[in-house]
Amino acid sequence: MKVQLLCVLLAVGPAAIAQDGSSPFREVLASARLSKSTPEWRADARQVTPDCKISWSVGKYTLHGGRQEGVEIVVINNGVMEITVCPTRGMGILSVNRGDVALKWDSPVTEVVHPQFVDLGSRGGLGWLEGFNEFMCRCGLENNGHPGTDKFVNNVGDEAEMELTLHGKIANIPASEVAVEVDTTAPYAIHLTGTVFERFMFGPRLKLQTRLTVVPGETSFQLQDVVTNVGASEQEFQLIYHSNFGGPLLEEGSRVIAPASSIKPFNDRAAEGLDQWHTYDGPTVGFVEQVYLLTPKADRNNQTMAVLHNKAMDKGASISWSVDELPHLTIWKNTGAVADGFVTGIEPGTNYPANRSVERKAGRVPRLMPGQTRSFTLTFGVHSGREEVEAAARQAAALGMARAGVDDPATLRKRD
Amino acid sequence: MKVQLLCVLLAVGPAAIAQDGSSPFREVLASARLSKSTPEWRADARQVTPDCKISWSVGKYTLHGGRQEGVEIVVINNGVMEITVCPTRGMGILSVNRGDVALKWDSPVTEVVHPQFVDLGSRGGLGWLEGFNEFMCRCGLENNGHPGTDKFVNNVGDEAEMELTLHGKIANIPASEVAVEVDTTAPYAIHLTGTVFERFMFGPRLKLQTRLTVVPGETSFQLQDVVTNVGASEQEFQLIYHSNFGGPLLEEGSRVIAPASSIKPFNDRAAEGLDQWHTYDGPTVGFVEQVYLLTPKADRNNQTMAVLHNKAMDKGASISWSVDELPHLTIWKNTGAVADGFVTGIEPGTNYPANRSVERKAGRVPRLMPGQTRSFTLTFGVHSGREEVEAAARQAAALGMARAGVDDPATLRKRD
Amino acid sequence: MKVQLLCVLLAVGPAAIAQDGSSPFREVLASARLSKSTPEWRADARQVTPDCKISWSVGKYTLHGGRQEGVEIVVINNGVMEITVCPTRGMGILSVNRGDVALKWDSPVTEVVHPQFVDLGSRGGLGWLEGFNEFMCRCGLENNGHPGTDKFVNNVGDEAEMELTLHGKIANIPASEVAVEVDTTAPYAIHLTGTVFERFMFGPRLKLQTRLTVVPGETSFQLQDVVTNVGASEQEFQLIYHSNFGGPLLEEGSRVIAPASSIKPFNDRAAEGLDQWHTYDGPTVGFVEQVYLLTPKADRNNQTMAVLHNKAMDKGASISWSVDELPHLTIWKNTGAVADGFVTGIEPGTNYPANRSVERKAGRVPRLMPGQTRSFTLTFGVHSGREEVEAAARQAAALGMARAGVDDPATLRKRD
Repeated sequence: MKVQLLCVLLAVGPAAIAQDGSSPFREVLASARLSKSTPEWRADARQVTPDCKISWSVGKYTLHGGRQEGVEIVVINNGVMEITVCPTRGMGILSVNRGDVALKWDSPVTEVVHPQFVDLGSRGGLGWLEGFNEFMCRCGLENNGHPGTDKFVNNVGDEAEMELTLHGKIANIPASEVAVEVDTTAPYAIHLTGTVFERFMFGPRLKLQTRLTVVPGETSFQLQDVVTNVGASEQEFQLIYHSNFGGPLLEEGSRVIAPASSIKPFNDRAAEGLDQWHTYDGPTVGFVEQVYLLTPKADRNNQTMAVLHNKAMDKGASISWSVDELPHLTIWKNTGAVADGFVTGIEPGTNYPANRSVERKAGRVPRLMPGQTRSFTLTFGVHSGREEVEAAARQAAALGMARAGVDDPATLRKRD
Repeated sequence: MKVQLLCVLLAVGPAAIAQDGSSPFREVLASARLSKSTPEWRADARQVTPDCKISWSVGKYTLHGGRQEGVEIVVINNGVMEITVCPTRGMGILSVNRGDVALKWDSPVTEVVHPQFVDLGSRGGLGWLEGFNEFMCRCGLENNGHPGTDKFVNNVGDEAEMELTLHGKIANIPASEVAVEVDTTAPYAIHLTGTVFERFMFGPRLKLQTRLTVVPGETSFQLQDVVTNVGASEQEFQLIYHSNFGGPLLEEGSRVIAPASSIKPFNDRAAEGLDQWHTYDGPTVGFVEQVYLLTPKADRNNQTMAVLHNKAMDKGASISWSVDELPHLTIWKNTGAVADGFVTGIEPGTNYPANRSVERKAGRVPRLMPGQTRSFTLTFGVHSGREEVEAAARQAAALGMARAGVDDPATLRKRD
Repeated sequence: MKVQLLCVLLAVGPAAIAQDGSSPFREVLASARLSKSTPEWRADARQVTPDCKISWSVGKYTLHGGRQEGVEIVVINNGVMEITVCPTRGMGILSVNRGDVALKWDSPVTEVVHPQFVDLGSRGGLGWLEGFNEFMCRCGLENNGHPGTDKFVNNVGDEAEMELTLHGKIANIPASEVAVEVDTTAPYAIHLTGTVFERFMFGPRLKLQTRLTVVPGETSFQLQDVVTNVGASEQEFQLIYHSNFGGPLLEEGSRVIAPASSIKPFNDRAAEGLDQWHTYDGPTVGFVEQVYLLTPKADRNNQTMAVLHNKAMDKGASISWSVDELPHLTIWKNTGAVADGFVTGIEPGTNYPANRSVERKAGRVPRLMPGQTRSFTLTFGVHSGREEVEAAARQAAALGMARAGVDDPATLRKRD
């Protein structure tokens, strides 16, 4: 155990050297390698970037009480937005708040639940739902879809069967390494890095490195994720960015603009609402979820974008990404009662959220050779006021297709 | 996460205003809403109620070592009794001690096990037994009986099957809000309040609010529980007060007095001992549990009462409750060896502890409309000396029926 | 809960009185009985045994970060070796380091995983593998082999079925009592004692007491374990000492010397390599484990010994034990890629690691009467330099049989 106790390695994640060669500010907030965890910590512009005009801050806090005892969160305030990330829950993003626009939803689960209280196998493999309340959580990495039986290779080399659990493990694994970096030259970008391992002996050997970057004063932020096969054999992986929105963005009359060459309902229930897939009703007691599977359309750089906005088009959010990295998009409409979780999900992924056995058959389970990595870059925008929202909507529409969700969705191919 | 960090709401549970308008003493001991947890804390009569003649105290402690690392307990001493409650285990009551009379038992499980070490699904759904050693723990709230398959509605609105686990989850969920209140006017009642949520996305949305009240110097205490459907749809719930007694109350020759209009054995094993259902043998190696299902008889106010006393009738305990609230009573006789858990349970409930599918078919699974509450009030008495015990026994007998357990149980209808 | 709070019992485990009557040094590091846990602590020769020439030390540390948050370890340095034990993981031995010889391996699981993050039932009962990276961990106590269905007696006295999980629970149960003792007279032996309970209501009632003893300056250490049936009825138990070696001991050309009267392959895969069971290849991508089941040969005192050494025979390890206590030996060859866990296991046990149902049928599941104990003493040696290694190899060979692994293994009876 010398490693944990004496190791003085300070580098965590990708090297962090500012472009002009100046040394960035860096603080390790948690590290299994250093056997370190900082319960409470705070840094701000005055200390770190005295020349920065914008009053940013980053803090780490440990939550207490009930099922959130010991949960660690990092709150980044870039002067105009507050982004809350939860290292204890796989570096998921709990919420993003910009004045009266918020990327978040009100789950029936209100505490930030520590993974120790989540039994993924419970309720027929739906135990993940006991902790689900993030704005954005990753589904994966070994599997990321519906529960149910799938095959795997066990410790004695035999093909065996296991019960997959809903949306996989990664959202319930604490990050092993967490650090904050701040560029000490303009524009003073703030970076939060995290490393989450999904590792078993005779099981998955996958590493997720995530880097959230936000520039003081800006109204968008970026995730740069890298998934690596740290094992010696080829292995499958899956990844979905389960991004969830409730009020005030989601309300009766909200719309999602998601350019797509194909939209398919997940099941008969979704088929009922196919023509209205892009518009939302208000909270409806007893509403049963509708899920749509899209093939996003992209620009010449293979970038696509999805926008959600409220009825008045003065509050909006956008997600931009590359279809080379995340070729599939799932839209989850769950406009049940507020008390039951009034929410919609915009979920770019390597695949759709069916059971892995289904996705594998459809050729949607990517594989990584030993040491191979796959990168994923997503930009999340928070749009306030009609001007910003319309600009985002225009940008989505400019992808060269029917402005789905605003124009006629019937022009989209409904089923293969 | 502003909510957790900045929220300054102080009200937890029902409002607490003393009857004469004076402000009661109040201390929040744990709160997920305030992100607060107090590892160690103590208050006593001298500080809080200097005019009170009785030297009471309340303390909160955090346990260490083995499987109890991090478990929080609250110890209330009202001058004559010490009541120990465990917020980490769903506000269960670990023990009540009044001199040489104690409401407790010696489980093979001696530590106060943190829920993180309990896998409810293990041992074929019997994992609950890994932490079971409370004097009184609640069984519920989504289900509270035997393990086994039952149907439920899953996230996509389909009726699916899940494996219920023994006695449900509530005894292994940490309370989200815990507070102590003390009336600052005579009789200076001490209240311990707690809120425990059993919540899932696409699952149960139930809230338990409990209020334990004890007056300095008195030898009984009261639980006032409220269960609320905090979801938007009607849902089922179940609740049993699993109250367990070992020595010194339980010994060869102990008797339970439980007025009932019907007593049925749970199974063939119980049927063997039906005639002696109300009397106890001493510790017996290899004894297999016997369970009896009673319909309690009540007075004109629908109050009923069960009394357990030792052979000499100089040590006793009583539970009083309303049959409107808890119409069913289970008597669990488990007079095995001391090392294996020599214990009897007196368990008022909304139902009997069969699998929920059985209880539903029998019409014993209550339902709550959205926002609807159900209240449960139980009074626990600790009786020392022949006079007190006989008074309690008389009170039970005075319910206008054969004094079951003392008189002839054969007058009771044995089977439907 | 008076017991936890007020108990002043200081004795933990076997009484500790030095042979000359002088009082040994003693420190309780964790105790559920005393509700005590010491996050950080250190003692050394200068303080405790000023007359001792060898500079030993013992420290307790709490690990932080990722899945090891809150894990407690004890590091014993006897002047020439460093032994790291993990009370949080059932008193397993994480590693033993003596200069360039180490008893350890590099698992894909690099953190010391807290049991709260291990779901033994996951992956078809293989969840144990999520935390497996010890040099030596115990498998047991209720069961210790492969997952799969076996019968048990449930709470209502019925024979029921449960799914056993790989290698049982004991390696994922925190020790309830942990103490360090140091003899204050020469040779100043250092003892680390721990008590781990595997207890359920209506389940196993087993106690493991372990005492690791190491003398300053010596290159071997001893485990003295006692398993006790603390229940009132006869019960089964199982115990395997899963001792695992990677580099530098394990490399292409390493050999294991394990005197045996019988060697059987566990399955067809192992049968393929039977003739080479005692020699090792280097890391091989995709290697599927081979497991051999041996009946050890012993000397007139029923002591046997297994030795593993590297190709140059200048680094070695040995395990010595009594075949009366542990009559079965399993050799696990898993020379996969380093990234996947390049490792071999030398595993003395009460049985082989098949499912308990198989072992029971073969008469290899021991039973304990109430109060009965079984003791297990193992000596682990760390050998550096050709002279030491050859001496150990000779000692093994001197057990009066073909020097298996060096001489011709074909002389061994291959299959019954």
